[in-house]
Amino acid sequence: MLEKTCELNQNFISTVILAPFLSIAIVPISGTLFSMITPRTLKGFRDFLPDLMLPRERLIETATDVYRSYGFCPIDTPALEYLEILLGKGSAETDKQLYQFTDHGGRQVGMRFDLTVPLARYTAQHFAELTFPFKRYHFGKVWRGENTQAGRYREFMQCDFDTIGTKSIATDIEIALVINDLLERLGFTRFKIRINNRKVLSGLLDKHGIADKTAPILRALDKLGKIGKAAVLKEMTETITTSQAEAVLTLTDLAGTPAQTLSALQTLLAGNSIGEEGVSQLDELIRATHAAGLPKDRLVLDVSIARGLDYYTGMIYETFLDDLPSIGSVCSGGRYDNLAELYTKQELPGVGASLGLDRLISAMEELGMIKKTSTPVQVFLPFFAANRLADYLRLASELRQAGVGIEFYPEAKKLGQQLKYADKRGFRWAVIIGEDEWTKSCCQIKDLQTGESVECPIVECAERLRMLNS
Amino acid sequence: MLEKTCELNQNFISTVILAPFLSIAIVPISGTLFSMITPRTLKGFRDFLPDLMLPRERLIETATDVYRSYGFCPIDTPALEYLEILLGKGSAETDKQLYQFTDHGGRQVGMRFDLTVPLARYTAQHFAELTFPFKRYHFGKVWRGENTQAGRYREFMQCDFDTIGTKSIATDIEIALVINDLLERLGFTRFKIRINNRKVLSGLLDKHGIADKTAPILRALDKLGKIGKAAVLKEMTETITTSQAEAVLTLTDLAGTPAQTLSALQTLLAGNSIGEEGVSQLDELIRATHAAGLPKDRLVLDVSIARGLDYYTGMIYETFLDDLPSIGSVCSGGRYDNLAELYTKQELPGVGASLGLDRLISAMEELGMIKKTSTPVQVFLPFFAANRLADYLRLASELRQAGVGIEFYPEAKKLGQQLKYADKRGFRWAVIIGEDEWTKSCCQIKDLQTGESVECPIVECAERLRMLNS
Repeated sequence: MLEKTCELNQNFISTVILAPFLSIAIVPISGTLFSMITPRTLKGFRDFLPDLMLPRERLIETATDVYRSYGFCPIDTPALEYLEILLGKGSAETDKQLYQFTDHGGRQVGMRFDLTVPLARYTAQHFAELTFPFKRYHFGKVWRGENTQAGRYREFMQCDFDTIGTKSIATDIEIALVINDLLERLGFTRFKIRINNRKVLSGLLDKHGIADKTAPILRALDKLGKIGKAAVLKEMTETITTSQAEAVLTLTDLAGTPAQTLSALQTLLAGNSIGEEGVSQLDELIRATHAAGLPKDRLVLDVSIARGLDYYTGMIYETFLDDLPSIGSVCSGGRYDNLAELYTKQELPGVGASLGLDRLISAMEELGMIKKTSTPVQVFLPFFAANRLADYLRLASELRQAGVGIEFYPEAKKLGQQLKYADKRGFRWAVIIGEDEWTKSCCQIKDLQTGESVECPIVECAERLRMLNS
Repeated sequence: MLEKTCELNQNFISTVILAPFLSIAIVPISGTLFSMITPRTLKGFRDFLPDLMLPRERLIETATDVYRSYGFCPIDTPALEYLEILLGKGSAETDKQLYQFTDHGGRQVGMRFDLTVPLARYTAQHFAELTFPFKRYHFGKVWRGENTQAGRYREFMQCDFDTIGTKSIATDIEIALVINDLLERLGFTRFKIRINNRKVLSGLLDKHGIADKTAPILRALDKLGKIGKAAVLKEMTETITTSQAEAVLTLTDLAGTPAQTLSALQTLLAGNSIGEEGVSQLDELIRATHAAGLPKDRLVLDVSIARGLDYYTGMIYETFLDDLPSIGSVCSGGRYDNLAELYTKQELPGVGASLGLDRLISAMEELGMIKKTSTPVQVFLPFFAANRLADYLRLASELRQAGVGIEFYPEAKKLGQQLKYADKRGFRWAVIIGEDEWTKSCCQIKDLQTGESVECPIVECAERLRMLNS
C-alpha cells in the first residue's frame, strides 16, 4: 500500500498547486486527508452512454457497408498535426477555434478541425503510394473550440467520403447514389437530395461581365434567407448595376420540376460555355441517377443553394429530411478542382460529401427510428443454481459458438432481482435453468416482453433462440 | 477568386510570422508568390493507408462482435479531459508524457493517455444512469508524448473491456474466455493465456510478516528478468531478512502443470487466508474455463507475472503468441478493488483487460495472416462503352442491391489500362461489358487471378458473382 499512499500524496500536492483552476473537495477517508476530484467533462464535450453508443455504432457500421460497396477504402490520420498544415487552408474563423499548443519537442501543433485538410495533406504526402482514382472514407473525431449551442459540440465525429483524381461526371453521379443508399439503408424514405452546380452562377456572372465581382455577390446572396430579396438586391448594387443584380437574382426565382428548371437555365445561360457546362452536368446527373434507380422525387435541382460556393467548383449536394427539415442538411458536399494545392504541385480534382452523424442520430431519435436499449444481445442467462457456475459458463460458450450472443449474470442472487436487471437492460429473452432443470437437462425460455415461457431440452436451446432471434 | 487570394495572403502572413517553427518553400505558382507547405506528420504519429486500415477495421469488427456476444456495451469519452482528472491517478512518468495545454476558456486540459482514467471518471459521473454490473468495451485513441522506438507511437488505439460493480469470480473467468474467443476468431490457435493472482504474493508476504514491505519487494521482483535472481535477492535483503527473501523467491521457482503449481502453492500458503483465497480463485478459474471449452494447454498458471501487481488486487492476465513471444503480451489485464476512488466514495470493484491492437496487427502481418489488399470489394466494373454510363451505373446499383459490392471505374479509358488499375488494387473479378455485350445483354466475368473468363447473361450476373464470392 506504500505505492498507493505516495500517489495520493503526489495528487494532493498537485491539486494544491493547481487549486485556482480546479474544483476539489477535501474529504477525509479512513483517517487520511484525501482530495476527491469532481468527475466532470469539459464544456462542449460528451460522454456516450451505451444506449446512445449502440445506435451510433450501428450507424457507423451501416455507413461503412455502403461506402465499401462502392469500393471506397478506409483511411486514418492523426488527431494532432503541425500547426502550419492546419492553418494552411483555414479561415480566420477556423484559426480562432483551433485547439493549438506547443508540444514536448517545442513543435507548434493543433488538433484537426475537419477531415478535409488532413486528407489534402495525406494525399500529397502519400501520392506515390496511392492508386488513383483514390476513393476513401474516413470516420474521425474533430475538434473546434467554438461557442457551444444546442446540438453544437467542441468534439464531434465526421464521416467523409471522396473520390480524388478524376473529373469524370461518373464520380459526381456516384456521390448522389451513395447518399441515397446511406439514407435508405438507415431506414429513411422521405428525404430530398438538393443539387446545384457552381458553374451555373459562374456562367451567369461571366455572361454579364461581372465574374470579377463573385466574392461580394456571393456574400450578398448568402444572406437571402436572412434579410430577403430586396435587401440583397440593394447590397449587390454597391458593386454591380441594378439590372446586373436583377439578372443574378432571377436564379433564385427558378422553380418547378428539374426538367423545367434545366430548360429555364438553358435559356438564361445560352451562349456561355461555363454556364452550359454546368447545365449539361446537372442534366446528365439527373438522368443517370434516375436510370440507376434513385426515385425521381428525391432529387431536387435547387439553384439557390449557396453552400460552399466559394470552395466548390462544380456539383454541390445537400440532403434534407422531409419530416425534419429544420435539422439542416444531413449529408453535404461537392466537387473541387484542386484538393491539395497548398502541399503539392500535383493537381488533384475530386468530389465528396460528409455525413452528419450527430444530426442523423438526433433525427432518428426524434422520429422514433431508434429503439433505445443498453444491451447488444437479446438473451440473458440468470445465475440461479449457485453451485453450477461451470455449467452455466459452458452453456453460454456453446450458445455463442452457435451464433447466439448471451449475457450471463455473475452473481447467484434471487431470480426476481436478476430479472429486474434484465428488464432494465432491455433483454428480450431469458434462459432460466435452476437445479431441477440442470438435473433434467432442460431450460425455460422466457419472453421478457410477454412473460410467457416455453420449456425445451438444453441441447435444443441454441436452435430455438436462433429461430426466435431471426 | 477574390476569396481564394485573400486566403493565400493570410496564409502567407501567418507562415512568415511563424517562420522559425515551420518548414516552408516559397514557390511561384501562376505568377503569384505562394508558400507551399511540406506535407508531413508529427514524429510518433501515423497515417493509415487503405491496405493497413482494412485489416485494422476488420480486427475491430471481430473484437466488437466478441465483446457484444458477452453483453459488453460500447461507450465513448472525450479526447480532452480536465487536467486534474488525468493527473489524479497518473504516475510522475505519465504526467511527463501528458499532452497538456490551456484551452480558449483558460481551463487546464490534457489529452487522455489511457482509457482507464476516463472510465473511472465516467463511472463515477454517470453512476446513477448506469446499470451494475456494468460491462463496457471502449475503442479509442490515446496519446503519450513518450520517446518513440520501433513499434512505439505517440498516438495509438486501445481496446479495453471491463465488468464493473461485482467481485464475483464468474466475471474473472469470463475475461479469460473473452481473450480466448478474441484470438480464436482472429485465426490464432497457438497462444497462451498466462494467469496469476495478486493474493498469492500478498498471502506469502502476510504469512512471513512482511506485508508492509510490499512496495520495495515488488520493485526488486520486477527486475528479475533483467538482473537475475541473485541480484534481486541482494536488493531484497536491504529491507527483509535473507530467509524471508528466499521464501519470496520460491514463488518464481514453481513450475509444472497448473495442478502441480496449485498444489505447491497450497502447501506454501497453508493457514494464510489471503493466500488461500488466491489459490482457490486460480483453481476455480482453471476448472471453469476448461469446462467452458478453453483448451487446457492454452491456460498457464505463472506465479512469476509481476505486471501491474501494484495496481491489480486479484486475478492477472497476460497473453503471448507461441510463434511470436518476443512481441510481448497482446492482451493483458486484471482485477482491481476500487476503480474510481479518486472521484466517488462509491466502491467499484471490477476486472478487465486491454487488447493490443497494434501488436496484434503487426503479429498477423509477420505471420502472414493478413492478405494485403486496398479494396474492400471483390468485383470491378470497367467503363468500356463510353456512351453507356447510365447503363453501367444501373447495373452496379442492381448488383449492390443484390448484395454484391462493386467498384465502377469512372473514366472510359482503354480496357488494358483499367485492368492494370484493377490488378494494383487487388480485385478478384471484373465484369466486362462492351457495346457488343450491352446489345446482347450479356457480360464476361473475368477471374483476375487466372485470367479466365466466362460469359453469362447480365440478369444472371449477380447470382454468379454471389456464388463466386462465397
